[in-house]
Amino acid sequence: MAIKVIKVGEDILGANEETARTNKQKLDKDRVFTINIMSSPGAGKTSVILSTINKLKDRIKMAVIEGDVASSVDAEKVEALGIPVIQINTAGGCHLDANMVESALNGLPLEETDLLFIENVGNLICPNAFSLGEDRRIMISSMPEGDDKPQKYPAMFADTDVILLNKTDLQPYLDFNFDVFKKTVTNLNSDVTIFLISCKTGEGMEAWFSWLEGEVGKKKDQAA
Amino acid sequence: MAIKVIKVGEDILGANEETARTNKQKLDKDRVFTINIMSSPGAGKTSVILSTINKLKDRIKMAVIEGDVASSVDAEKVEALGIPVIQINTAGGCHLDANMVESALNGLPLEETDLLFIENVGNLICPNAFSLGEDRRIMISSMPEGDDKPQKYPAMFADTDVILLNKTDLQPYLDFNFDVFKKTVTNLNSDVTIFLISCKTGEGMEAWFSWLEGEVGKKKDQAA
Repeated sequence: MAIKVIKVGEDILGANEETARTNKQKLDKDRVFTINIMSSPGAGKTSVILSTINKLKDRIKMAVIEGDVASSVDAEKVEALGIPVIQINTAGGCHLDANMVESALNGLPLEETDLLFIENVGNLICPNAFSLGEDRRIMISSMPEGDDKPQKYPAMFADTDVILLNKTDLQPYLDFNFDVFKKTVTNLNSDVTIFLISCKTGEGMEAWFSWLEGEVGKKKDQAA
Repeated sequence: MAIKVIKVGEDILGANEETARTNKQKLDKDRVFTINIMSSPGAGKTSVILSTINKLKDRIKMAVIEGDVASSVDAEKVEALGIPVIQINTAGGCHLDANMVESALNGLPLEETDLLFIENVGNLICPNAFSLGEDRRIMISSMPEGDDKPQKYPAMFADTDVILLNKTDLQPYLDFNFDVFKKTVTNLNSDVTIFLISCKTGEGMEAWFSWLEGEVGKKKDQAA
């Protein structure tokens, strides 16, 4: 009798992809445009979400899933804006997976939601390997992290649909070379859209809001 | 017959601790003071190592192990200073483990080394669970990441011996409250030593150099 070999890595990733497809079907049924937001710790995921809620909340119905190793400080900030939010604490886990998101979806009013933000755990490596059921992957990179990050963490830069390059207000005080950054990113990912933004000053945010509103509209127009 | 259950997580961590002890014995034999340097991507691990080499290389014999998901840009910078260096590429792995370090130690001139830097993969979560054989854990947190990082990634702040709070030159342009940061850190870890530094301007670096030189001296004075 042949011995059955379970390769844990492949098995886990395969099962995750299956659950991610189920999540996607559920979100497609209610035409919820869903973004998986990934970055290093402190690059500005929560700030981008809060700014976007403040700008679009009168026009778009939104909900948020917050992923963190510990604490619910981010979820509390979202809740203060009157937006439905579920906090996932991974208890040491370094990324969200599709099962965690499946549980969270059951607690959100999807029929009343046009745009769902999933804020992943702050990590430039593992979140990339776990689909959650999202329509688009959004990555935030911040200028103080340095222009060499695409070279050092290539997988995430290669797989994302959009890069928000945040904290441009600090550029005068940094040795950040945008041409170097862009060239490395484009070599990894020729289709990516890059927006230069400062959540703090608001500079560049309008282009991001427009892109997002356009995508939400396209999803709404799709046949269910 | 009772079914044998292998709990993968515990098994991996137990085996890692054993290899870490072997590494530590090897390093102790040659009285190499060894630090495991951890941080988010872009907080300044390589900059701290390069500044420290430049300051201390005439007085202390140093070597470096560089851990990265991909690339050898950091190792090349160290090599340019004439310091023995081994690059570990984890091929997607989000932390170093004791086995990787064991292999690297075999390629370094430990008898000729007083201070070994191990630069971990940029990640605020998983590196904390894997001892490498180090004498001390050094964590770099940078001001642009925000003062809430200890609350959101508590395990690493709780387990470190020293925190280098880097990029203090950017403080005038940030909403970083040091009292908030320090209070959260102290609640997690009452024994930690915090140095405020700017690798860019050199501010605060002397205190770090002195601490490090003192520790290297203590290890040299130990009976082998």
